[in-house]
Amino acid sequence: MGSVDEASSARLVRGLLLEYGAIIQTRLRAFLDARPGGSEGYLYDLAADYPARGGRCLRATLCMAMARLHGGSLEEAANSAVALEILHNAFLVHDDVEDESEERRGRPTMHLLHGVPIAVNVGDALAVLSLRPLMDNRRSLGSRMALRILEETERAARESVEGQAIELKWRWQNSVDLDDTDYLTMILKKTCWYTTIYPCRIGALIGTRDRAPLDSLLRFGFFLGAAFQIQDDLLNLVGDHQDYGKEIAGDLAEGKRTLMIIRLCQLASGKERARVREILGLPRAARTAAVVRWIRELMDEYGCVDYARKVAHGLAGAAQHEFSQMYSELPDSRDKRFVEALPTWVLSRA
Amino acid sequence: MGSVDEASSARLVRGLLLEYGAIIQTRLRAFLDARPGGSEGYLYDLAADYPARGGRCLRATLCMAMARLHGGSLEEAANSAVALEILHNAFLVHDDVEDESEERRGRPTMHLLHGVPIAVNVGDALAVLSLRPLMDNRRSLGSRMALRILEETERAARESVEGQAIELKWRWQNSVDLDDTDYLTMILKKTCWYTTIYPCRIGALIGTRDRAPLDSLLRFGFFLGAAFQIQDDLLNLVGDHQDYGKEIAGDLAEGKRTLMIIRLCQLASGKERARVREILGLPRAARTAAVVRWIRELMDEYGCVDYARKVAHGLAGAAQHEFSQMYSELPDSRDKRFVEALPTWVLSRA
Repeated sequence: MGSVDEASSARLVRGLLLEYGAIIQTRLRAFLDARPGGSEGYLYDLAADYPARGGRCLRATLCMAMARLHGGSLEEAANSAVALEILHNAFLVHDDVEDESEERRGRPTMHLLHGVPIAVNVGDALAVLSLRPLMDNRRSLGSRMALRILEETERAARESVEGQAIELKWRWQNSVDLDDTDYLTMILKKTCWYTTIYPCRIGALIGTRDRAPLDSLLRFGFFLGAAFQIQDDLLNLVGDHQDYGKEIAGDLAEGKRTLMIIRLCQLASGKERARVREILGLPRAARTAAVVRWIRELMDEYGCVDYARKVAHGLAGAAQHEFSQMYSELPDSRDKRFVEALPTWVLSRA
Repeated sequence: MGSVDEASSARLVRGLLLEYGAIIQTRLRAFLDARPGGSEGYLYDLAADYPARGGRCLRATLCMAMARLHGGSLEEAANSAVALEILHNAFLVHDDVEDESEERRGRPTMHLLHGVPIAVNVGDALAVLSLRPLMDNRRSLGSRMALRILEETERAARESVEGQAIELKWRWQNSVDLDDTDYLTMILKKTCWYTTIYPCRIGALIGTRDRAPLDSLLRFGFFLGAAFQIQDDLLNLVGDHQDYGKEIAGDLAEGKRTLMIIRLCQLASGKERARVREILGLPRAARTAAVVRWIRELMDEYGCVDYARKVAHGLAGAAQHEFSQMYSELPDSRDKRFVEALPTWVLSRA
């Protein structure tokens, strides 16, 4: 793809994210504002905190674009798209507790602000809230479709908690003997299912009234979501703090097993590897800026960042190939061009 | 009710709990055993831990008895009953984290055994797992009924997280200016909805194919569930450790606002009340056995335990009255006698 095409594709992606994102944000705010005023009212104020911090609504926009691309309307997809964003925020609150993260979207994480007990409760509240718009699908799409979308939601949520479990186990066992396949399996579950596969599947489901085969979307969603996650991990290492909204190299401070860390452990000398493992095994507070910097420099020495970039590019290319295989016959539309351009955009976003 | 009647009612309740409980436990085990064997397999081992520690399946049995009482079959209610037990265990795992509890069913709590991050993940996994049997209702009861039961589930889960939020707020603000109404509102949400109201409602829903009015069950479920919760709090103070399976006076150590504590704060002198508040405001580790004992003795001095017993008896009587109002016309059956006898049993259980 030429650079002129690339620039116009990026503009198109940004434009649709702004347009559909605004629709979602408006609905999301209205939904989260309709909360009870009793002693439990503060729970809904806190539940609205992460969503109010912004976010691109990438997942919701992908779902709506896929629904339109398959002949559905924005209105038909809106409930599911709102549910997706709420579920995403539910995951973020609990993930931040589980990963002991300190920053989210430029502000302290929920448990740092309000303590672990309240953060666990707020994450649960968001998860429960995500069910309501999915119930409302009954009125707009009928019982059968509403239930099918709930089934897809249950699957995506299950994959996510399983992916999170794999990652927690690696940290708990302080694993360093991992390879690319381990990593890709983990992010398939932890990230791809609910970030890309699930939005694509329910979009197609809604647009075709459950007549599209959904299995081919698994591959496309996996390639796209994996490229997205690796780029996210890269941004955590090399990104601009203000754009990114989390601590830079926070993943290293958290001892997260990224593709770069896994590559480093494969290439490093026995002595270096032992030292990396030792550092990753420390409690978070004991991982000083100096040791984090040492790992970071070792990564550059072994070309781990470049390697991860190459893998992400390969995955994005595979996603584009899958898309053209599935949808080349479809007439041109903004929604089609949006989904088609997403793999490239995912790699170029800051 | 005479003592002969009472003894035979108690036998009947115990008998049905054993009988239906065995059905549920068998299904629950089969469901939890069908788990993947990958890196995430340990998650399902941990998810099966709390359920494997036993438990009476009171909620599931109530649901099945209510379904039968309304003309349904055990088979029709079984999926929902299994979901109920899984959801209950999901709540327990997160509640234990939020309350910093140390013992559950005679063993250390999940987060004490495996740390908070894994416990949060396991609770999430159980919550997601609870959805699957509810999806399976589609095959046995059709899409419309399956979705109605999911709507009831969403409501019950929402009430529970709201009730938990109220309790967390009281602890976080170290509230002592509470009254019986505050307490009853909190347990209506935190306990009654998912323990009694929801099982009754979905039982009736299944048995009548959504033709029963469910609102009258709100009152019965509230009275029954509130009597149950107050008795639970009483057992925590005065019960036998082995039967009860939690630390005795653990609620006091956790700073929980029970009816007895609320009563104490109402009756105590200004100086005593200030001291009680001071103790409740300490971090858990700083609340020594000596200060817990002091509060416990002050409760006896002010008759708080007797007061709570009286309130629980009043609520149980109200539940019996509601039941007779609703179901006196129904033909006699074991299921009917079970539900009818529950309010009395709730108070007599050890």
